Amino acid sequence: MNPGRSVAVIGPVLIIGTGLIGTSIALSLRRAGVEVLLEDLDSEQAQVAAGMGAGNIAGSEAEPAIVVVAVPPRHAAQVLARASDDFPFATITDVTSVKERVLAEACDLGADPERLVGGHPMAGREVSGAASARPDLLDDRLWIITPTEVTQAKHQRAAHQLAVTCGAYPVEMSAAEHDRAVALVSHAPQLLSSVLAAQLVDADAAYVQVAGQGLRDMTRIAGSESALWTDILGVNAAPVADVLDGVIYDLQRAARALRAVAAGECASINVVTEELQRGAIGRGRIPGKHGASPSTYMEVAVMLADRPGELGRLFTAVGETTVNLEDVRIEHVLGRQSGLVELSVQPDSVTTLEEALRSRGFDVRG
Amino acid sequence: MNPGRSVAVIGPVLIIGTGLIGTSIALSLRRAGVEVLLEDLDSEQAQVAAGMGAGNIAGSEAEPAIVVVAVPPRHAAQVLARASDDFPFATITDVTSVKERVLAEACDLGADPERLVGGHPMAGREVSGAASARPDLLDDRLWIITPTEVTQAKHQRAAHQLAVTCGAYPVEMSAAEHDRAVALVSHAPQLLSSVLAAQLVDADAAYVQVAGQGLRDMTRIAGSESALWTDILGVNAAPVADVLDGVIYDLQRAARALRAVAAGECASINVVTEELQRGAIGRGRIPGKHGASPSTYMEVAVMLADRPGELGRLFTAVGETTVNLEDVRIEHVLGRQSGLVELSVQPDSVTTLEEALRSRGFDVRG
Repeated sequence: MNPGRSVAVIGPVLIIGTGLIGTSIALSLRRAGVEVLLEDLDSEQAQVAAGMGAGNIAGSEAEPAIVVVAVPPRHAAQVLARASDDFPFATITDVTSVKERVLAEACDLGADPERLVGGHPMAGREVSGAASARPDLLDDRLWIITPTEVTQAKHQRAAHQLAVTCGAYPVEMSAAEHDRAVALVSHAPQLLSSVLAAQLVDADAAYVQVAGQGLRDMTRIAGSESALWTDILGVNAAPVADVLDGVIYDLQRAARALRAVAAGECASINVVTEELQRGAIGRGRIPGKHGASPSTYMEVAVMLADRPGELGRLFTAVGETTVNLEDVRIEHVLGRQSGLVELSVQPDSVTTLEEALRSRGFDVRG
Repeated sequence: MNPGRSVAVIGPVLIIGTGLIGTSIALSLRRAGVEVLLEDLDSEQAQVAAGMGAGNIAGSEAEPAIVVVAVPPRHAAQVLARASDDFPFATITDVTSVKERVLAEACDLGADPERLVGGHPMAGREVSGAASARPDLLDDRLWIITPTEVTQAKHQRAAHQLAVTCGAYPVEMSAAEHDRAVALVSHAPQLLSSVLAAQLVDADAAYVQVAGQGLRDMTRIAGSESALWTDILGVNAAPVADVLDGVIYDLQRAARALRAVAAGECASINVVTEELQRGAIGRGRIPGKHGASPSTYMEVAVMLADRPGELGRLFTAVGETTVNLEDVRIEHVLGRQSGLVELSVQPDSVTTLEEALRSRGFDVRG
């Protein structure tokens, strides 16, 4: 539930494709009292969704206000075009995670570009199918909306209302921008994480043993489902390859500079320094919590014993102060029964928090 | 303090170089009651360290049992050789983060390889100098020990005792292995994080805005101090370049495959799938907490309101169960006053924890 959000009232919505995302959208629309119709080539999936309260199986009702195409990417263009044909007044949108190719193909197949609006709710689960759907899957998630060049304003508004009614936050950009944006911030980093983790496959076990939090952070997403990512990377192939080319170029420059340094050309290290400095600048551009820069917070580190209840005692102590935590990290020390907890707070709260925790007997580190 | 550890009694230790690490080692030795002598080219630093209770300024005392050379990497070999000359019976060790070159140069300069033992306490701070030193800096950290091919057993034992007395955990490997290990798990990942973050420097602000937790995790260490990393990467240049070459090779293969897919050669995606699968295998090799594989845990996700005290309430509730938390992650939803908290627990604790939290009114997700 997302009780703090105002909910727009929208007309009947037809969901074509009652998998995880389609059924979750349907459930969140039903939660807001919206009439939902369900359609799926696999009528069993549609029955499962209807049985979960996601809406009624579509029949010969009046035209829906919005059609949401939530089928696999390779079918999306065709289904969008057919929906546009079948419902000549409805807003036609989809939920695929790559936008430019899908929308262009849909228009080539006859979809009405004035009523077509691409959509990408940025949510998912490790599982698929109607049975895994949840009414809160979209809550507090970004939902990127990509109009065509000629999408009419009322259909853009309908797509926004759809997102808001599902509990998500709409953000608008062009389809090409969307694809480049997700290639940069999601698809290429995913592949980079996998490639880094792949270097460990044949490494000596003793080497891997000294891995710290940095490597753990950088390879966390390498544990994601490879089938899902194969699909995503395949459909957004060119924008991802563009980002990889930039990464490869910079890595080659750095590797060449390091070889030169190893051969005695000490000045070549400047190339590496410059890259490290550029990295720090790039890192500073990533929005932190509530859009703040990550660098605006300071950290208070506490060494905890690894006993049940210790984290509870710590956060209860924090709750007794006036300090609001911005972020928390727990760094486990390899193989040891203890953990360093890093509490991110506003700079002017550091002293208050440190003193409060020390006075309660916590081991606060520098 | 690290009261759970047994502390070995060792003879007088001479610390040459009273910067952050040297003085921290001295303070932790003093904490254990060990006699410490301090020496620094910069007598003011040595005075600061002595004033902090790190030991006495070295004079004409009897020969120390252990000499710890804690000077900048570029001076380490020379100082090791001199110490070996000055103290013909002492164990001679250092703390530099790159080992093979330093030890080889020290031997070339006349250091006695039978008494020489490389050391690398894996700890540091964002600040430097004696005044930033802390007696607990080494607590619960790995301390890699790299004997030469001829280091005598008693000097190896002395290096182990030194590490344990400082509160650290000794791990032994050869100097070359150490350098390749840290290149793989620390130095190359650092550069990769910086290179990825550098791709954001010239990116459209709207693209960067859709960044999620994956990119934040992967670029966290790109915020580290560039001067420090320039030094480290420069001294371990060849092993780092070797790792980068492997990364570049895999990235080029993936980028070529994606270009082929974009050009219509759909089967080329298999190359990408294979890399994703290798990444998952590599990720699975990284030790988790207490040496367990990260994949042995399951996650319970809780959506929290962003109010002071909510985390305290959550962890207090967890503490009231019999469940032990293995890890915690807080994923902030971009620009929103809420956060998803992921609690990692043993698989057989998932149901217990979910039920306990739901019964206390928490919004437990999938």
